[in-house]
Amino acid sequence: MNRVYLDHASATPVKKDVLEAMVPFFREKFGNPSNVYDLGSRIKGKIEDHRARVANLIGAKANEIIFTSSGAEANNLALKGVAFAGQKKGRHVIVSSIEHHSVLNAARFLERLDFEVTFLPVDEWGLVDPDRLAKAIRPETILVSIMHANNEIGTIQPISRLASICREKKVLFHTDAVASVGNIPVNVNELGLDLLSFSGISLGAPKGIGALYFQKKVRLMPLIHGGIQENGRRGGTENVPAIVGLGTAADLARDELPEKMVHVRRMRDLLVSGLVEKIEKVRFTGHMEKRLPGHASFCFQAIEGESLVFMLAQQGIYANTGSACASKALKTSPVLGAIGIPPALAQGSIVFTLDRGNTIEDIKYVLEKLPPAVARLRALSPIWGKEEKTHQEAVCG
Amino acid sequence: MNRVYLDHASATPVKKDVLEAMVPFFREKFGNPSNVYDLGSRIKGKIEDHRARVANLIGAKANEIIFTSSGAEANNLALKGVAFAGQKKGRHVIVSSIEHHSVLNAARFLERLDFEVTFLPVDEWGLVDPDRLAKAIRPETILVSIMHANNEIGTIQPISRLASICREKKVLFHTDAVASVGNIPVNVNELGLDLLSFSGISLGAPKGIGALYFQKKVRLMPLIHGGIQENGRRGGTENVPAIVGLGTAADLARDELPEKMVHVRRMRDLLVSGLVEKIEKVRFTGHMEKRLPGHASFCFQAIEGESLVFMLAQQGIYANTGSACASKALKTSPVLGAIGIPPALAQGSIVFTLDRGNTIEDIKYVLEKLPPAVARLRALSPIWGKEEKTHQEAVCG
Repeated sequence: MNRVYLDHASATPVKKDVLEAMVPFFREKFGNPSNVYDLGSRIKGKIEDHRARVANLIGAKANEIIFTSSGAEANNLALKGVAFAGQKKGRHVIVSSIEHHSVLNAARFLERLDFEVTFLPVDEWGLVDPDRLAKAIRPETILVSIMHANNEIGTIQPISRLASICREKKVLFHTDAVASVGNIPVNVNELGLDLLSFSGISLGAPKGIGALYFQKKVRLMPLIHGGIQENGRRGGTENVPAIVGLGTAADLARDELPEKMVHVRRMRDLLVSGLVEKIEKVRFTGHMEKRLPGHASFCFQAIEGESLVFMLAQQGIYANTGSACASKALKTSPVLGAIGIPPALAQGSIVFTLDRGNTIEDIKYVLEKLPPAVARLRALSPIWGKEEKTHQEAVCG
Repeated sequence: MNRVYLDHASATPVKKDVLEAMVPFFREKFGNPSNVYDLGSRIKGKIEDHRARVANLIGAKANEIIFTSSGAEANNLALKGVAFAGQKKGRHVIVSSIEHHSVLNAARFLERLDFEVTFLPVDEWGLVDPDRLAKAIRPETILVSIMHANNEIGTIQPISRLASICREKKVLFHTDAVASVGNIPVNVNELGLDLLSFSGISLGAPKGIGALYFQKKVRLMPLIHGGIQENGRRGGTENVPAIVGLGTAADLARDELPEKMVHVRRMRDLLVSGLVEKIEKVRFTGHMEKRLPGHASFCFQAIEGESLVFMLAQQGIYANTGSACASKALKTSPVLGAIGIPPALAQGSIVFTLDRGNTIEDIKYVLEKLPPAVARLRALSPIWGKEEKTHQEAVCG
């Protein structure tokens, strides 16, 4: 059976070169980098080497990078770190309403500690309106956090405009770039950022490693208090193999990016045009142009995304859905809700994220298998063919 | 040249079997465990399997374990998680004065947020007095955190007594067991614990993984907010290979423990008796009996521990010191200060932590190389042979 993996935003296999670079640090070079003797200090040097590589991927300096255990940790460190360090200056934070759970739930946590949070709405393409952001900023605003690209609908925000508004008003600006780094060019200086989070998940780096970029002027309370690691900004022994993995993956990602972008865009466009041609009542989600090149997302009327994901997996096709009934976390995707997709239609969400390994054959295979899968689910659906009103009554699970 | 590694509390090489168990999860079995399709759900199953193994090492149930990225993160989650969830009940926390930085600095962070923290003193052996703990508990006390064994002086606290005092007074009790798990038997039920932190560092598990045990009754605010991972208690994609590593190492550690304890105790006793016989003006630190079996710690008069560590490393002997001038974190060890070691003597701290791979030949080699190293440093010391008063004027670095 074919295996066509189109869920690279969820996970990617660690690249061969990346794993090879990591392996010596598990057994031979196992020392604790905080130790003063050679077994430790040599490894400290390796960490700094790989910190520079990671910085280089996003146009930052090495001393502006804090290694974390994930993009989620980096997001939490950005929000809580700035909020706790800056709470005497003000207690108001702004985030968009389509942020990743790690940003949204960190913001809600701050609300419980008597911070005020503004959740900025987005338009039907998932874009934040810069004027709206400007109006939302108050004298007591200390941080704005708006994601670079959305993992579920692929939309890329006008980050440099949003960041420049914040800069003018002297408010720190953070972006969650987990979905964008490695998929489009990301340069912290060109974008004018104060803080940026990303992870290795979609770069072929291992799980368990992420990074926070922060400008030196940013005062940051640690999330994980401890010793002197990461210049006192994150306690705990450094995860050396994973840091080496992220640094190695960052180098590879930078080299591959131009070619990867061209390739995945071509594959994605083939997928989208074929799919829209072959399947009726499908809504493309997110912005058509301002989106990640390897990202395609849809909502199919009258089906459940999760059932479709299962059915595709049986054919060896791996995709994701924004409607995660099984996850128990949410009945319908808040992102799809925020862009005005009715709940019933949002149930039929499907997300494809491509990488350079995906081929025309992969896309042809999907275009062969997807339409009958959708047709079969619709044939089983009690709401297919009925009024829109009925669709909206459909509930998850 | 010989290589005699006696710093197992800082780092241990990942065991061969552990690394072998991990490797398939980097490339072949790379799926995201949150995904509903088979590539994800199978990995979710593996995580639960290894959660049970980790639980088993400390006599817990699988659903009482949260995976973290380190012991430091587990400690932060315990302190801040309980404090933020329980702040309406009370805002007073008690820790001992010889806790790991991750506990001490998390407690100081809570102080900045208007929690009150009592730092309990210890006696000259590093022991917390149960009566003193009982007296320190107030109606508004929500958490007591006292480490199981101290990494720097090896002393093991009377945890079950301390925990039972807390239980009687209905105050949650947490112990940092990073230094004890894998070195002595640790059973959360026998000890009567509500929360326990540990990591894989000294078990031959990889860096970047730790765990928090928590009783189901404990209300815990996440430290890393995010999605539904770890039952909503820790966001971020699970670090699958590291979890598999910790689970595998936990199984091995449990099997090896009885034999390991006998062996390292014998080696340690040889080291201690040889050293005390061969070197004058050396003070053994920590409790003589209530201590980790593979742990030996000393302060040598009129030398700097860091210089001794360097000099030993040149002979292939790797040990640690509590006086960490290079680290910039501290001038003298707060642990040694807390047990009443004068600052000048505390500078001469050295810590040996043994594992089952250490041999009699290793110990003989140390006993051959250490005395001349100490003698040479003392010969260079401006304070050697002078009055105690002069010693106390010595400063770090």
